[in-house]
Amino acid sequence: MGQGIAARPQEKEELLAMFEEQIVEVLEWLAAFSPDEAGGVTRLLYSDTWLSTQHALAERMKSYGFVTEFDEVGNLFGKLPGEHTEASSILTGSHIDTVVQGGKYDGAYGIAASLLALRYLHDRYGKPKRTMEVVALCEEEGSRFPMAYWGSGSIAGKRDFEQVAHLQDIDEVSFVDAMEKCGFGRGSGRSSRRHDIGAFIEVHIEQGAVLETEKVAVGVVDAIAGQRRMKFEVTGESNHAGTTPMHMRRDALEGVSAMILELRREATRQGAPLVATVGRLNVLPNVPNVVPGKVMFTVDARHADEAALGLFCKWVMETFKRLADERQLEISGMEWFCEKPVPMDAGIIRHLDEISRELSISSKRMVSGAGHDAQMFEHICPTGMLFVPSRGGISHSPLEYTAPSELAVGVLVLTELLYRLGYGEEAL
Amino acid sequence: MGQGIAARPQEKEELLAMFEEQIVEVLEWLAAFSPDEAGGVTRLLYSDTWLSTQHALAERMKSYGFVTEFDEVGNLFGKLPGEHTEASSILTGSHIDTVVQGGKYDGAYGIAASLLALRYLHDRYGKPKRTMEVVALCEEEGSRFPMAYWGSGSIAGKRDFEQVAHLQDIDEVSFVDAMEKCGFGRGSGRSSRRHDIGAFIEVHIEQGAVLETEKVAVGVVDAIAGQRRMKFEVTGESNHAGTTPMHMRRDALEGVSAMILELRREATRQGAPLVATVGRLNVLPNVPNVVPGKVMFTVDARHADEAALGLFCKWVMETFKRLADERQLEISGMEWFCEKPVPMDAGIIRHLDEISRELSISSKRMVSGAGHDAQMFEHICPTGMLFVPSRGGISHSPLEYTAPSELAVGVLVLTELLYRLGYGEEAL
Repeated sequence: MGQGIAARPQEKEELLAMFEEQIVEVLEWLAAFSPDEAGGVTRLLYSDTWLSTQHALAERMKSYGFVTEFDEVGNLFGKLPGEHTEASSILTGSHIDTVVQGGKYDGAYGIAASLLALRYLHDRYGKPKRTMEVVALCEEEGSRFPMAYWGSGSIAGKRDFEQVAHLQDIDEVSFVDAMEKCGFGRGSGRSSRRHDIGAFIEVHIEQGAVLETEKVAVGVVDAIAGQRRMKFEVTGESNHAGTTPMHMRRDALEGVSAMILELRREATRQGAPLVATVGRLNVLPNVPNVVPGKVMFTVDARHADEAALGLFCKWVMETFKRLADERQLEISGMEWFCEKPVPMDAGIIRHLDEISRELSISSKRMVSGAGHDAQMFEHICPTGMLFVPSRGGISHSPLEYTAPSELAVGVLVLTELLYRLGYGEEAL
Repeated sequence: MGQGIAARPQEKEELLAMFEEQIVEVLEWLAAFSPDEAGGVTRLLYSDTWLSTQHALAERMKSYGFVTEFDEVGNLFGKLPGEHTEASSILTGSHIDTVVQGGKYDGAYGIAASLLALRYLHDRYGKPKRTMEVVALCEEEGSRFPMAYWGSGSIAGKRDFEQVAHLQDIDEVSFVDAMEKCGFGRGSGRSSRRHDIGAFIEVHIEQGAVLETEKVAVGVVDAIAGQRRMKFEVTGESNHAGTTPMHMRRDALEGVSAMILELRREATRQGAPLVATVGRLNVLPNVPNVVPGKVMFTVDARHADEAALGLFCKWVMETFKRLADERQLEISGMEWFCEKPVPMDAGIIRHLDEISRELSISSKRMVSGAGHDAQMFEHICPTGMLFVPSRGGISHSPLEYTAPSELAVGVLVLTELLYRLGYGEEAL
């Protein structure tokens, strides 16, 4: 059994029952600040409801005994000062913003779980050996402004005010004005950049259906997949659909169809953690009685291994070129987005594996196909991630759902991990 | 050599030289009434330039010795009354309207060729045995209002004022108002419906690249292809492109790609006169990092043989259903447009074959994949069509082009045919 908080089986069940009740209460309370008409949550960076949510969260942190602080971009920290003030902090949390018509769990779950875990540890064990902090990161989704990971990136030194100086949202409101209207911006509070963080832990919904399908309680994240995004334009000849015999056609859509099937076949053959997707495709002129002359489409490819991802993208370029050549189609392609895979910390992974085993919680190692704040923190400290199931793999939707009992398991594992990092024998 | 107008080789060359010069003059003159900024012609039904073109054409017909008349929808007839007034008329011509940013040849060539052919016959041989008429049909393209074949359909009894009573163009101008502003409409002139037509002949640019590719001077149309248009909706599951392993996807676009390739493979295997096209395709949500959940697309299938077209469409429905089922995709499909093949008159085809052979003009029998006014006339009289090459198969574009020498060959064949039908020994 666990070395720490749930040493007896009876205690594990009691803790799960408690966390189940608490996590539902906090998530419903958070969602209620930013309801939208679709039944989900819309909480865009620096919006009115974003601000009221952060302030309400600060009040709740205070009521739980945390010392609160905003940094100058609006990240909210709830701190439990440690005995050893010179030791680096353990930070845990996630992002408070959502996409438009998002759900109650993406981001919010990581904050709520961290809040409850640290509150429990503080109530039961008092002052930690080292400082522990829950963080409600101001932004991750990139849904209001063309800027993602603003919260975690600012802490990690990967984002700065220069990068947002000229950004506007869809209503032409400037990033800087929106930030300053909320009371944040350069010099408004503690500088966001941190050099005193010893570890970052994020729990999050999986946003995929692997845990649910395989009936596994938690996913221990090995790595956040690298992503490459390419766009292609295939040009054939736009012709009259009635007067152009089949053998005289250079149909761009037929060529692209062959590319899509080949991409799917090869990605399926290689299998996890590789995924590859043609998500956007537009046809010109897109008229029922005209042979398509041009097709523009995207490829999104992800893999936990940088070299394997590079090889796959090379295969894509070569294969598409061959398929185009065979059909006398022209093709141009370019990569417009490239993010390297981010490995999670081996020590934290080992802890999570052990905790799951000791608490008899089913777990599996997995790669996160989605991006997360954790990938920013990995630049500055050991970082770990834990997933809980997403029903139907659905996220970024009002239909996003994880059962209370599943949410509680994630809180329990996180609590045990934070105990080890902040209170246990190995804490320093 | 020809039995009629070009009995000596020398005469053929003289006639071709004359027609070449004349046809270019008439086509450039017509185009100049409705130039558009793209360098082509835009002459929409009942527009100002449409009206001035029809009136100018009427004046030119008069100057050539034709008796002119508009019917109540704005079809313009230039008549050479025949000796035998009780005999039915021979009608020849095409449509005066164009698509938006069309070319100088589609429609206009058929009118100009008919005008020059009848003028020549009249000048050389005088009064025909039976009445001969050139017609500038008011509308065929369906480009201004959602109504096509308005001119020929009104003559053939396939169109009537009831059908246009509530139509509007994109600027919400009513069909009836536009028609009346030009001086046409119910009771404004001769009733459009005709019962006195003995044959209709239309020469037209091919709008395909078969004649050009095969280096053949004229196409003798066997039939106008039947058309069926279907639309399909394929539904899979819209998922996160990063977190959904390949084997857990139900990717609507991947399924539709397989359908497009199968359609192409089978249509190519069957070959001419079958053609099948996926021209319009839309993806939902059409975002680079989301697996496509839904794809809507169209199939346009054409064939000269009604039964073969029916069998092919049945194959399409069954094959798409099977490909969807194999992938656990849902599919719904419906046919929203069905036009039967229209055979051209065997006697006229025989005449055209003979004339080409006697004049040593290369020709081939072909199916028109595009629709034409001829298919309306086929309901009321023996009907024939002749094609001349389209450079690059291009039409409905300012780039539409047929060389003057190729245009002249079409005029010569038409002239010989009209001689046979109106002047020759078999004329009555």
